[in-house]
Parts: sequence; C-alpha cells; structure tokens
Amino acid sequence: MSGDEARATPQDELARLLADDMAAVTATIRARMASEHAPRIPEVTAHLVEAGGKRLRPLLTLAAARMLGYAGDHHIRLAATVEFIHTATLLHDDVVDESTRRRGRPTANLLWDNKSSVLVGDYLFARSFQLMVETGSLRVLDILAQAAATIAEGEVLQLTAAQNLATDEEVYLRVVRGKTAALFAAAAEVGAVIAGAPEPAVRALAAYGDALGVAFQMADDLLDYGGAAGVIGKNTGDDFREGKVTLPVIRAVAEADAGERAFWERTIGRRDQRPGDLEAALALLARHGALEATRVEALGWAGRARDHLAGLPAHPIRDLLAALAGAAVDRIR
Amino acid sequence: MSGDEARATPQDELARLLADDMAAVTATIRARMASEHAPRIPEVTAHLVEAGGKRLRPLLTLAAARMLGYAGDHHIRLAATVEFIHTATLLHDDVVDESTRRRGRPTANLLWDNKSSVLVGDYLFARSFQLMVETGSLRVLDILAQAAATIAEGEVLQLTAAQNLATDEEVYLRVVRGKTAALFAAAAEVGAVIAGAPEPAVRALAAYGDALGVAFQMADDLLDYGGAAGVIGKNTGDDFREGKVTLPVIRAVAEADAGERAFWERTIGRRDQRPGDLEAALALLARHGALEATRVEALGWAGRARDHLAGLPAHPIRDLLAALAGAAVDRIR
Repeated sequence: MSGDEARATPQDELARLLADDMAAVTATIRARMASEHAPRIPEVTAHLVEAGGKRLRPLLTLAAARMLGYAGDHHIRLAATVEFIHTATLLHDDVVDESTRRRGRPTANLLWDNKSSVLVGDYLFARSFQLMVETGSLRVLDILAQAAATIAEGEVLQLTAAQNLATDEEVYLRVVRGKTAALFAAAAEVGAVIAGAPEPAVRALAAYGDALGVAFQMADDLLDYGGAAGVIGKNTGDDFREGKVTLPVIRAVAEADAGERAFWERTIGRRDQRPGDLEAALALLARHGALEATRVEALGWAGRARDHLAGLPAHPIRDLLAALAGAAVDRIR
Repeated sequence: MSGDEARATPQDELARLLADDMAAVTATIRARMASEHAPRIPEVTAHLVEAGGKRLRPLLTLAAARMLGYAGDHHIRLAATVEFIHTATLLHDDVVDESTRRRGRPTANLLWDNKSSVLVGDYLFARSFQLMVETGSLRVLDILAQAAATIAEGEVLQLTAAQNLATDEEVYLRVVRGKTAALFAAAAEVGAVIAGAPEPAVRALAAYGDALGVAFQMADDLLDYGGAAGVIGKNTGDDFREGKVTLPVIRAVAEADAGERAFWERTIGRRDQRPGDLEAALALLARHGALEATRVEALGWAGRARDHLAGLPAHPIRDLLAALAGAAVDRIR
C-alpha cells in the first residue's frame, strides 16, 4: 500500500471522530428498515444499506449537530432519515436509469424486479418521514419536505433535459441540486436546526452543504470526461453515451460552429453515435476549454463551501468540514 | 335516463353538501401540483388529476372535519394531501402492475414512460408532505406517515403474496389495508384530529374509514369474479388471470380436495392457464360457497363501519357517511 492510499481522508477522520454516533445511526437504520410482515423489504434494503456506500450525508448531519454543541439524540434519527431518503432515491434512480450495478453490486431492480425497487423505495421514504416526525421539530420537517420536492423535481428535469442541447447552465444547476446538493444542504441544515444553533449558523451550514454538493457533482461530471486532461478510461463516457447534457457539453455547445453543432445534434440530440465519437467529443471539449472551465467552476464551488464555514466558532469538526470541501475536488486538481 | 340512474348516491350528496370545500381542494391541488421548472410534472399529474376519479378520500377528510364542527381551513390542505398520496400511489401502481388504462384513459406510464411515473409520484409524495407540514400538527403528520408506511408495506406484501396459495386471510387483510383501507382510515382520522375532536370521536372516524375501505376492497375483489352470482362479464377475471390471491380463492383453497388443489396450483401458483379455466374456477368457488362467504364478509365490514359512527353526535353528514358504508356494498347485494 502506498503512503498516499494509507493517508486518512477528511471524511475518514470525521467518521472516526463521530464513530459512536455513526454506530447509533447504523443501528437505527437496521431497526427501522425492518418490516415484520413483508420480508422482501429488509432483503432489498439490506442489500443496499449493508453495501454501505460512504454515508457522507448522515455524517454531515452528525457533524453539524455536534460542532454546534448538540447533546441530545435526535441528530441520530435525522442522520438515519437522510440516509433513508438517499437510499429511496437510489432505488428509484436505478429503475429510471435501468442500471445494473450500484456500489459494485448488481442493483436491486436486477436482483428482484423494478416493482420491488419502486415499492421498497416508497416504504423507505415513508419510514424516513416517521423518523423525522419523532424529532417533533416542524422546522426540520419543512426543510426535509422541501428537499424531497427539490430532489424529485430535479430528477424529472433531468429526464427532459437529457438529449436536449437547449439545456443551459441554469437548468444544469437545478438538476445538480436535485441529484446531489439539495440533500447535502438539508442534511447539514437539519443538524444545525436540531442543535438550536443561531440563524446565521443554520444558514451557513445549509449554504455549505449546497456548495459542497454542487462541487462534488461537477467534479463527477468532469471525471466522466476523464477530468480536465480528458483522458479516456474504463469509467469515462457514460454521460456522453446516455445523452446527458452536463456542464462540459453546455460550455462546448455554446461555442460551437455549425459543423460542431451538427456533431452534438447527432451524438447527443439524436444519440446516433459511432466509433470514435467520444474521442471527437473530447477534442471539441478541449478545443473550447470546456473541461478546464468546468474544473474552475467546481473548484469555485468548493471554495465557496469552505468560505461559508468561516463565520462559525472554531472547532475541529469545522476544520474537517472545510478539508472535506477541498477533498471533493481533489480528484480533478 | 332511468329513475335509478338519476338518484344521487350518498357520495354525490356528500359532495354537494361540501361543494365549496371540494372546490377549494381542487384549487389547492391545481396550485400545488404545478412545478415552475419541470413542465413534465403538471403534464403527468393533470392527466391523472383532471381525469378526476371519485375524490372519495378527500371527501372523507372534509366530512369528518365539518361534522365535528371545524371552522378553519387546514382540512382543505389535508384533503389535498390525501389525494396527492393517493395519486402518487396510483402512478407507482401503474408501473408495478404494468397497467395500460386507468380511469378510462391510457395510464401515464404508457403516455410518457415508467421513469416519469416513478419520479412524478415521488414529487407528489414530497408535495403532500409539505402540505401537511403547513398544518403545524405533528399528530396529523404521524398519522399520515404511518399510513404511507402501511400502504407501501401492503403493496410489497401483495407482490410476494401473488401466485402464493399459502396466502391466508391475515395476509389478505394486510394487503387490503395497504391497498385501500389505510388511506381511508387516515383520511377520516386526520379530519377529526384537525377539528380538535375528543379522542373517542377520533378513534371512531379512524375505525370507520378502515372498515369502509375493507368493505370497498372486498366488494371489488368479489366483483372481479362476477359478484356473489359469479356471472362472467368483460370486467371479470383480472385477478384470476394475474394470479392475485384474493378472499374468494383463499376460501376455496381452504376447502379444496387434492384435484382442486392441483387446479389452483397450476392456474394461480404457476399461472399456467388454458381456455375454460376461469369458468372452472368459478364452479369451484360456487361449490365451496366462497363467493357467498366473501359477500357476507364484505357486508359485515360495511355494517361495522356504520356501527363505528353510532356514538357520534347526530349530524346530516354522519347519516351520509353511514349511507356511504351501505353503498360500498350495494354493488354486491
């Protein structure tokens, strides 16, 4: 193992610092995803929940609450709530995307069927709702209900924005907020709210989560084209093949001449793709500096995430959250 | 038009008595299903919401609240909430059942795609959640969150109960509660809660909605076999063809000899069906009195629904709710 791999990431350090809370969240998730009467439910959810993922969202809730001095236990319920909402959207996304693999395993819709993915997602969403009601905080309920609506709206928007070259940066950002940033923002915000933090701190945490989510998603979208250097690997080109219009393409289309426009219309607009098209697309992205521009945008959002933390009281967790924002874009530096 | 067709049903009379409230509910539904950014959302929902359906669930909420003297306007939000939850489950059901027609129109999953049905259902669920938060009642939120979980659990249970001859009446009732009775019960209960009614009245309304929902669903399941007389029409036999194990089949399987059991195993268990099988199934149902027994059960639930209203103060709406319970099983008398 190289020294680089052995170095703990900011997220690892946060998880270590909040290990007891995270263990309580895992226990709550296990207890609440059970269904006495429908054994299919824990089968499907265990498959996803045990696969683990990075549990970044619940960590944001715990970090915000603890950093702001919370000593109760509702943050555990809220962290589990956030992970349930995330898991429910993954189950529904896999149906929508007709995915076959998630977190290195076959997806639930492949192992069981689309029906189970839809209905178990609904079940988790209902359970998440029950968990938040238990906190007794109407404000928390309001924030998470709004996030759930933004997520669904963003996903629908992505459906209609796909293969549509008229998609602009405003629509792109709305899709990114739906896919990623809305739940990051809500996760951090509800941690601050349940801690009874003053308004400026609540707003700072919400803005931090939003910017962090946008930075993450932009970095992902850039990496899908091989990063700023545009190096094709086995995990690149999915968005291009699926006709998803992300920031690199939006920037290149804005600068396209007639011939280039015809290329994008054919490959993305009509998804009529031939061997060599991904390479040709990368050449156009490079020609117009679209990958570099996306990199600069993503770094900007990571910087804004860090800036939002500046007014908060000094705390080791605050420093780790700031480092987390940097780590979100480390992959594309 | 015959005199019989011209006679108003109890539901028609309730809708007339509560016409102003129902108009406000429709206006709330229209306003809240809109999405500024994703026009696909109102396209899909308008298709379903404008088709109308009977709006029985919101009517239960309004009726309970008004009968118990409520003078505010949160019952309008709650009635819209209940209809949103119902519409969201219809959208997801159509994906799960691979349906092609609903309320006499092509289903959304056929007109758009499964993706839109899944995501717009999620959007409506999130919106319903926002509407309830606006009422500021944690108790209402708790009741509706529990109902949402019961609905999803019942639907998952139905997936695994289908084609399974081991399905017993307990599992059947749980599926029926998920499909129908849980939302009927919650709709009536939250109307009573928002009216600030005393506990016995709240419990009576919840029990009324539950029994009404079970009676409705049992009548539907019986009509799928042509009613107690077992007369095959163009709308009969769907459950049999889909291998859904409903009360008539459960009763007949319980009395089956070896040859009959083999028949059910082949037609329902393995869904290996041949011409004449539906007729043969009806003959077995008749032989064991399974249709008549289902009819008696459904009438019993309608009677229980009426009985739950007995302790409530006299009110024209109370009498109409009692008549509604009778009307739920009129189709199978």
